[in-house]
Amino acid sequence: MKPKFAIGIDVGGTFIKGALVDRSGRIIFRRKVPTEASSGNHGVLNHVVSLIGQLEKTLKAKGQILGVGLGIAGLVDFRRGIVLVSPNLPGWRNFPVLQTLSKVVNYPLFLENDANAAALGEKWMGAARKAQSFCFLTLGTGVGGGLVMEGRIWHGAKGMAGEIGHMIIDPHGPPCKCGNQGCLETYASVNALRRMVMEAFETGRKTILGADIQNDSLDGKAIFQAAQKEDALALEVFERMGFALGVGMASLVNLLNPEMIVLGGGLSAAWRYFIPALRREFKSRAFLDITRGVKIVRATAGENAGILGAAHLVWQCLGKPNPPQKVKGFQG
Amino acid sequence: MKPKFAIGIDVGGTFIKGALVDRSGRIIFRRKVPTEASSGNHGVLNHVVSLIGQLEKTLKAKGQILGVGLGIAGLVDFRRGIVLVSPNLPGWRNFPVLQTLSKVVNYPLFLENDANAAALGEKWMGAARKAQSFCFLTLGTGVGGGLVMEGRIWHGAKGMAGEIGHMIIDPHGPPCKCGNQGCLETYASVNALRRMVMEAFETGRKTILGADIQNDSLDGKAIFQAAQKEDALALEVFERMGFALGVGMASLVNLLNPEMIVLGGGLSAAWRYFIPALRREFKSRAFLDITRGVKIVRATAGENAGILGAAHLVWQCLGKPNPPQKVKGFQG
Repeated sequence: MKPKFAIGIDVGGTFIKGALVDRSGRIIFRRKVPTEASSGNHGVLNHVVSLIGQLEKTLKAKGQILGVGLGIAGLVDFRRGIVLVSPNLPGWRNFPVLQTLSKVVNYPLFLENDANAAALGEKWMGAARKAQSFCFLTLGTGVGGGLVMEGRIWHGAKGMAGEIGHMIIDPHGPPCKCGNQGCLETYASVNALRRMVMEAFETGRKTILGADIQNDSLDGKAIFQAAQKEDALALEVFERMGFALGVGMASLVNLLNPEMIVLGGGLSAAWRYFIPALRREFKSRAFLDITRGVKIVRATAGENAGILGAAHLVWQCLGKPNPPQKVKGFQG
Repeated sequence: MKPKFAIGIDVGGTFIKGALVDRSGRIIFRRKVPTEASSGNHGVLNHVVSLIGQLEKTLKAKGQILGVGLGIAGLVDFRRGIVLVSPNLPGWRNFPVLQTLSKVVNYPLFLENDANAAALGEKWMGAARKAQSFCFLTLGTGVGGGLVMEGRIWHGAKGMAGEIGHMIIDPHGPPCKCGNQGCLETYASVNALRRMVMEAFETGRKTILGADIQNDSLDGKAIFQAAQKEDALALEVFERMGFALGVGMASLVNLLNPEMIVLGGGLSAAWRYFIPALRREFKSRAFLDITRGVKIVRATAGENAGILGAAHLVWQCLGKPNPPQKVKGFQG
């Protein structure tokens, strides 16, 4: 019998990542193409289709692909295969992505919110392998979230649960893209750090980030590097990020009593700059009896979490995925 | 065959309520005795035992009682039958209540947090009969909470989930009994309303509640009655309560996407004074796509919710409870 594979695809605002993933969670082949979000939903889907074609070609025989899982940022109705709204993909409002894709792709298709997919990736192959209930956050341009309860994604009544980034930290806080104010995302995302740095710079605060602000190259990496150089403003904005995360995690843990909180996404690289404030607020605010034993850890599946989780959607529906601990070698 | 009954008991800070409940959720006999919390854990348990005895005596034959369910305010380890800490029952720290009770009570015993029990009561016989996932809040001296997901209480890793009253509304808000600041409970409980009225009164605000403050008789009922008489300060504190509830419910719905939010507890009687601000904040803050269709309703099982839910613990473990819709009459 020929080995079977799942295709996992992560549609981000900048890149579409795809991979062939075997039953044990091993990535056999990985490929990344630009999203070109401005080309509209059909333009982006053409890139997805061509990426699937490239992954197919690497296999020798037909019939080796079980299905395709897609993780897409935004509010997603996974049951009906519809993207309701996406912050990074303009024009995807109420877009029936699976139905559209099924006209040209002849594999079973599965859809999931990108943060939920990444949470599944962390559960399958990353930091949360041993946890049955955990909360997953992606700290990136925005803040995404996924709730895993008793081993499965908690989707809620309409499939849209898990918006941890839109828990309110301060009801009078900065305006959020979602229409609300003071969401966690307005303190703990790249966009939030940028805003905080620029606001302080405008009031005359000294920072080595001045050049980046003037060149319009102020991004998460620049702020991270400034913190490494002990720039006081960069350190301060990470401290504010940690404060907000600590407040949010205290609410989350009082509410859900998970085993673990896993922090992923690009900004989790700046862990050591925000984690002291996070832990301080968390410890002083969450119920001691609930928090005792709750682990707060960094994600370990890294930028593969999304594609692994998307592939896992296929395996969990069409074939039993192997627990990664038991894998001895290539399944073939 | 003789009819079977469950005993449901709700141990509150002031009263212990108990009832004989049949399979269809009908309360056959109900009794209430003072808690006398100051008599310590064994003193309170003596009252529980005597209450069970009184309920037993109303039955003609032995062997008709299937078991006893207890709902107790506080952090509860329902699996091990332990009350970890209770705000209203001093001296109950790490108290093995079921083990202690089992020495004198010969029925199977079940323990649950009181708000979780009330949530089960609302699911069985109240406002949430048709909901599979909902959030339940008790607005009383404090704010209790229960999360029902896919028809069952979400307990979390250690059995302590559901502390909706300790979600943070404002990280710099008033100190909370739990050690945190700005919890929902510091805005949406009787204690919170009392504090807000007294603080305003001390700054010279006019209110018809002045006499109650001076007589130390300022309670939820007095503030409610002042609102009915259009006292501006009473109306304002209910508005502040509604604001905080709206902020908290927006976070909760963005996070969990439930079908319904059910508000119970004594203060829910003041519904019309806080609900406009609650709905206004909720609508402007929660994701439109998630909130569409989320119902915010008043509890209907009233002060029976706790005893019904406690009895339901017994039925769901030892005998199948009847769905209330199908009940035609007394099951005998």
